[in-house]
Amino acid sequence: MAEKQSLNTARKSIRCRAAVCRQAGEPLVIEEVIVAPPEPREVRIRIICTSLCHSDITFWKLKDPPGYFPRILGHEAIGVVESVGEDVDEVIEGDVVIPTFLSDCGECVDCRSKKSNICSKLPFKVSPWMHRYETSRFTDLKGETIYHFIYVSSFSEYTVVDIAHLTKVDPAVPPNRACLLSCGVSTGVGAAWRTANVEAGSTVAIFGLGAIGLAVAEGARLCGATRIIGVDVNPDKFEAGKKFGVTDFVNSVSCGNKPVSEVINEMTGGGADYCFECVGLASLVHEAFACSRQGWGKTIVVGVDKPGSQLNFSSYEVLHSGKTITGSLFGGLKAKSDIPILIKRYLDKELQLDEFVTHEVSFEDINKAFDLLIEGKSLRCVIWMDR
Amino acid sequence: MAEKQSLNTARKSIRCRAAVCRQAGEPLVIEEVIVAPPEPREVRIRIICTSLCHSDITFWKLKDPPGYFPRILGHEAIGVVESVGEDVDEVIEGDVVIPTFLSDCGECVDCRSKKSNICSKLPFKVSPWMHRYETSRFTDLKGETIYHFIYVSSFSEYTVVDIAHLTKVDPAVPPNRACLLSCGVSTGVGAAWRTANVEAGSTVAIFGLGAIGLAVAEGARLCGATRIIGVDVNPDKFEAGKKFGVTDFVNSVSCGNKPVSEVINEMTGGGADYCFECVGLASLVHEAFACSRQGWGKTIVVGVDKPGSQLNFSSYEVLHSGKTITGSLFGGLKAKSDIPILIKRYLDKELQLDEFVTHEVSFEDINKAFDLLIEGKSLRCVIWMDR
Repeated sequence: MAEKQSLNTARKSIRCRAAVCRQAGEPLVIEEVIVAPPEPREVRIRIICTSLCHSDITFWKLKDPPGYFPRILGHEAIGVVESVGEDVDEVIEGDVVIPTFLSDCGECVDCRSKKSNICSKLPFKVSPWMHRYETSRFTDLKGETIYHFIYVSSFSEYTVVDIAHLTKVDPAVPPNRACLLSCGVSTGVGAAWRTANVEAGSTVAIFGLGAIGLAVAEGARLCGATRIIGVDVNPDKFEAGKKFGVTDFVNSVSCGNKPVSEVINEMTGGGADYCFECVGLASLVHEAFACSRQGWGKTIVVGVDKPGSQLNFSSYEVLHSGKTITGSLFGGLKAKSDIPILIKRYLDKELQLDEFVTHEVSFEDINKAFDLLIEGKSLRCVIWMDR
Repeated sequence: MAEKQSLNTARKSIRCRAAVCRQAGEPLVIEEVIVAPPEPREVRIRIICTSLCHSDITFWKLKDPPGYFPRILGHEAIGVVESVGEDVDEVIEGDVVIPTFLSDCGECVDCRSKKSNICSKLPFKVSPWMHRYETSRFTDLKGETIYHFIYVSSFSEYTVVDIAHLTKVDPAVPPNRACLLSCGVSTGVGAAWRTANVEAGSTVAIFGLGAIGLAVAEGARLCGATRIIGVDVNPDKFEAGKKFGVTDFVNSVSCGNKPVSEVINEMTGGGADYCFECVGLASLVHEAFACSRQGWGKTIVVGVDKPGSQLNFSSYEVLHSGKTITGSLFGGLKAKSDIPILIKRYLDKELQLDEFVTHEVSFEDINKAFDLLIEGKSLRCVIWMDR
């Protein structure tokens, strides 16, 4: 069906439905929009399904730049190639693809290096434009520009994505599972697998058991960690965590005056080998550092704090502990090579994805997905575009 | 001679000369002291020569605890075993040994792990006592206790050191070279070699070209770094640096309003692979981080800042850069296994040590060594005990 449609629509604008955010914090409005054809190195895709990630909510609420309106949010998705712009030979119409906010151009020194996943040719910014041109492919029916969101904008039946932000995947994978690898689950699993490179037999502490934290647990479980300590304010998260290998739970509310780090230091006899901060609070990064094992402990920053927030460490403590602090963006994954590995591991029944999907709604009900995530009721809510 | 003496002195107190620091910041006084025989797991050694390290000066000046007086300072040295306490079978009388402020007990989980050099059985503190007993082996002729300094106290003809703080070395090595491996040069070379594990072909930036910074350069050179950028306020340091592989020099004074990190980012087209802070200033750690390469850059904290100083990093920058910050105590070296490797590399003419020794004085002139280092005239001044 996608191919048939593409015969009619290639090089033409497409009129389709999108959930537009016209004002910060206001419910999305499903309306008809015009999606321009792809420019060179760009691809227009039909979204099959998309899922809601906390970053969508963060930018939905953000009144000032990098909050821009009207905007099409959404960045965790899977789709089918409708048509390609010039100089695209990596995918063809009908290919199943996963868009990612982080580019993987394959050409720059970072993309060619095994050590980095942070493309320097098309560096990440919270931009309202397409990556190469600083223009939009979306207009409303009055001709007004609609802004993009971190190079994906998946809350639309059709969207345009730079080829550097697309990974071709095995079409056999269920789309309502694979879409999670577009951002959240990849970020968490990758943080354990690629950034931390968790050793078999080690002890891991995870601050925050939302979808990202649980994905870190899943990654640590796959790496062979034998003890996975989850920390959260909500004790229900322990049950959810058990599915992903969480073996111990610390309710940070019921620690009283004792810092969580002290509780974990006691539980582990000196700290965890790897500590992941998945909430996005600078103070928790400090707690994570404080309960990482002296001599080799790694603290991995995964959560996004408010702009301007600072991480503080005692100079003496850093020097005398031999501990390491490192950041993990998109889990240290290189999209084009690592997402297919994760998909294969899912198809091989090693990587768990089903357990992350707690809700599925039709496109019309996209605002329900927002409510569910804000209320802490969902891990991932999949939004089907054609249902 | 040492053995002959030991026949007379084992199990007895020894009366010998020591340079005692009786008051913070006052010249050391060479006086006779009593050195008690070693307790179980301790060794009494005759110091052959010792060299002066900045930490000696830091604690010489420190009026309040962990400054303690009267005290015998000195912690970079080489000596000969005079006698051993009970339960010592690792060394015998006459063995040449290097003392280290950091213990290597060989028994705890850290010492048995390849990943840590921070002994957890005898953890490092700036203690005035012997490590296992919290007592002193030194008294003056009036019977007053004289305090130890970080488990070594080498400014004495004889001192007592815990076996966990002693490494037996090849007696063929010239003592006025090998003593540098007791602290400073090991710390710098190790930071590049063990902590950072500098890759061949990489670019390194070093903040502060004192003996430690130059030793980092030497370590990076041995690891095959192709570009080594030295940063210092003193342009004369570039000449010194060239001997140790420094290829580029940044005079931080003449950068004007431009941050040094910006200068280095421009020179390297995006930052150095490894940045070492060897001055001990939290603000410089921040500069080092800012000019470490996105995606894989490592910032290694080597310098000791004032107690209570804080390292601050932007949460966003840590997350989005994929950079790493790590502390390096004693260069990440395990004394008993790594010092012998460095000595072999010196004897094989790979590791340069001669170039660090800018001055040599007799024990009587120990205060000259302080003046030379404080005035920035020496890298290392060796103090011979018997000259």
